[in-house]
Amino acid sequence: MAGPEVEKPTGEEDRPTIVETVDEEELYGPSEELLENINAALAAGDIPVVESLIEPLHPADVADLIEHLEPEQRKLFLDITRHALEAETISHLDEALREEVVDQMAPAELAEVVTELDTDDAVDLLEDLDADTQQQVLDSLPAEDRAYLEQGLTFPEDSAGRLMQRELVAISDQWNVGETVDYLRNAEDLPDDFYDLYIVDADKKPVGSVPLSRAMRSKRDIKLTDVMDEELRLVPVDTDQEAVAYLFRQYGLVSAPVVDGDGRLIGVITVDDVVRVIDEEAEEDLLNIVGVSDTDFHAPAYKTAFLRVRWLVVTLVNTLIASFVISRFEGTIGHYPALAVLMPITAAMGGNAGVQVITVTVRALATRDITPNSNVMRLISKELAVGLMNAVVFAIILGAVGGYWFGHIGLGFVLGGAMIFNMVWAGFAGTVIPLVMDRIGLDPATGAGPFLTTTTDCLGFFAFLGLATLFLT
Amino acid sequence: MAGPEVEKPTGEEDRPTIVETVDEEELYGPSEELLENINAALAAGDIPVVESLIEPLHPADVADLIEHLEPEQRKLFLDITRHALEAETISHLDEALREEVVDQMAPAELAEVVTELDTDDAVDLLEDLDADTQQQVLDSLPAEDRAYLEQGLTFPEDSAGRLMQRELVAISDQWNVGETVDYLRNAEDLPDDFYDLYIVDADKKPVGSVPLSRAMRSKRDIKLTDVMDEELRLVPVDTDQEAVAYLFRQYGLVSAPVVDGDGRLIGVITVDDVVRVIDEEAEEDLLNIVGVSDTDFHAPAYKTAFLRVRWLVVTLVNTLIASFVISRFEGTIGHYPALAVLMPITAAMGGNAGVQVITVTVRALATRDITPNSNVMRLISKELAVGLMNAVVFAIILGAVGGYWFGHIGLGFVLGGAMIFNMVWAGFAGTVIPLVMDRIGLDPATGAGPFLTTTTDCLGFFAFLGLATLFLT
Repeated sequence: MAGPEVEKPTGEEDRPTIVETVDEEELYGPSEELLENINAALAAGDIPVVESLIEPLHPADVADLIEHLEPEQRKLFLDITRHALEAETISHLDEALREEVVDQMAPAELAEVVTELDTDDAVDLLEDLDADTQQQVLDSLPAEDRAYLEQGLTFPEDSAGRLMQRELVAISDQWNVGETVDYLRNAEDLPDDFYDLYIVDADKKPVGSVPLSRAMRSKRDIKLTDVMDEELRLVPVDTDQEAVAYLFRQYGLVSAPVVDGDGRLIGVITVDDVVRVIDEEAEEDLLNIVGVSDTDFHAPAYKTAFLRVRWLVVTLVNTLIASFVISRFEGTIGHYPALAVLMPITAAMGGNAGVQVITVTVRALATRDITPNSNVMRLISKELAVGLMNAVVFAIILGAVGGYWFGHIGLGFVLGGAMIFNMVWAGFAGTVIPLVMDRIGLDPATGAGPFLTTTTDCLGFFAFLGLATLFLT
Repeated sequence: MAGPEVEKPTGEEDRPTIVETVDEEELYGPSEELLENINAALAAGDIPVVESLIEPLHPADVADLIEHLEPEQRKLFLDITRHALEAETISHLDEALREEVVDQMAPAELAEVVTELDTDDAVDLLEDLDADTQQQVLDSLPAEDRAYLEQGLTFPEDSAGRLMQRELVAISDQWNVGETVDYLRNAEDLPDDFYDLYIVDADKKPVGSVPLSRAMRSKRDIKLTDVMDEELRLVPVDTDQEAVAYLFRQYGLVSAPVVDGDGRLIGVITVDDVVRVIDEEAEEDLLNIVGVSDTDFHAPAYKTAFLRVRWLVVTLVNTLIASFVISRFEGTIGHYPALAVLMPITAAMGGNAGVQVITVTVRALATRDITPNSNVMRLISKELAVGLMNAVVFAIILGAVGGYWFGHIGLGFVLGGAMIFNMVWAGFAGTVIPLVMDRIGLDPATGAGPFLTTTTDCLGFFAFLGLATLFLT
């Protein structure tokens, strides 16, 4: 068929009309009513009802529904719908569940799904298959698709090459608006949605871009090179996805051109994929702080337990070192057990103050508020000042409390002194540890916290018990 | 001027051509070279050089540059450039710095800046002004702009009304593609960029949308209602921005229609603003965990110190409660000081295991992996199982270490027993505390952590010292 009529993308025209106002209360996840109806239909084995219930749903919502079903119901549901699921639904599923679904599908079915997806989503799906199935699926695809996907699999994970789709709109720098519109109306194999026209020279090298809205508002005889933006940032195919996310955020992009080593346009990254990346990176940052993996929530209990062990081992080593420090003062404590009562305070205050500093520093590194050109001395002095100010306040409060509680003014001074020492250290170490880790190529988000609390625990106990040994015994 | 020629947006045509390949190494923030050159020019008071250095930069990069200058240089820089800064640069500045710049501008200058911005950014800027200046700026604007901005200021912060821009493209449901294109070519006051055409009925109520790419590919005589998507989610103007972000993420949107109480189209939210929201919310989630505000990094030391006090007070109360628990066992400790050496271990392991559970639960609540319809019992049992598995492993290891260290097998059993008790409690409380807080309308992201560690500290000390008192003395 030459010159296709442009229609709504396949699969959408059979979904009924829904112009509805968003209700915040019912926005997130499947409604209770839907879950109940689905469960009832599954229990009754009523396949047509199940199908009619999911028919009006967006693929992303079907994926959500599957994630919210109980394991037994989910199995039933998938047995019924597996071969009727839209490709996009499968691609929206949480990774663990997607594997479950895909493992049950024949290579021919998978090939069909892969064909319907954009190249970036298709590669995501392919890379989870075992080598044999992957090859079978690839073999059953048309040569061009196969070449794109095989190349896609060679790009490093988390690179621009994995985020981009190969379907793109490249317009010759010789064309005017009229020629472009005629091309767009007649071309097959264009992406479903696109937002910018990339203008390329004879070598397929991009020379500028025209937002669709501007192209649409321009008269037919205007040359595209006359209205194009000449400020165009080309993304090399091996760029890390974090850098891609930065570009989109910084410059408010909706799409960006990806080029190969010779500077030729080979793909386009669109903002919907970048939104996913930003979300994933934020989730990772958050979970890494406490040593939890991003698959933690959906993994079975034994796997979750195993994934969390590493961080608990670090905690264990940390406290054993702290215990060793305390054991050096067993004599003092035996002589004066009130010290055991008060000693956790200094460690806890230093640890928590330090974790605040670490979090701010790690976040500033991640958002590039701190760059290699930043004035590091100013950062450190600020945190030393902050640490000192709060240390003095809390030392006075706690010194008074401790002195009054045990009726011993010397004890109050020891507690206050140790507190000042430890909180100032927390301000210093909380800045310096992540900065040094970042400089020598370690990830401060995962290691800095436990490392810091080991130091604040040990120093907290050492300062408090040491001062007590010197002045109170 | 009727029927404007469509050109690149104002301010862009005088920036020189930059088609350049992104270099990851030099991507983030201003380069060292640029900073050095700017500082040299500032020191020499060479205004033309400063201006020529910033001329080729994107407004977002100029804002970054300003943020990276030392305070004294920044003052010099702003004195020179304040009146020449692009509106977009000012709107990109970090909030604290933006206030600094805006405070120095006359109402007439501000009015000019406001006129150049989209309504959402203009409202952001206006709301930071004192009431007097705000009124003066508003008074000097054309009536329609003023009405939009005054209404914008009445919408709650963090609502769809604040995110939307009033400039939008509404197309009659009676038009065909040709009529639409003619309208777009001739209309003034359209937004700079738009991605979807919203089709409205005679009452201005949206009935569907057409992505620009599809409109562009359709022949002139085709009616828009024949190619429009009828699946359209209308965002009420008072919707929370978090819900808006969810919509964009879930359905891969690039723009969304905002409606008033009568369902009439009054604005459009575009994805670039949503990317900013997603980023801000992620940052808040991360910083809230440790009781740090999102202005922490750029605030002066005394302010930062003050902002962090609240969380340190919570820590203080927490440890004082724990100290009180320990004080009940002063006699036992005096009798057997080895207990003081080992007692931090149980508390630390329980606390850290619990913080892992809390983080996963809070995140799952935020991403709506847990909804009101989720099976809460299954979550709790999973965490109890995870807690028990890791508790047994670590109880055996630590029991052995403790028993061997002090040559007392009973001490090993007491340590192991207390550990199991506290880590299972951590699994239970780490799930239940955030779930209950969420149910009764408290924010689990800010309060759940400190609350949990208070319980694991107290129970950890109590279980260990209590068991020791029962079995060892």
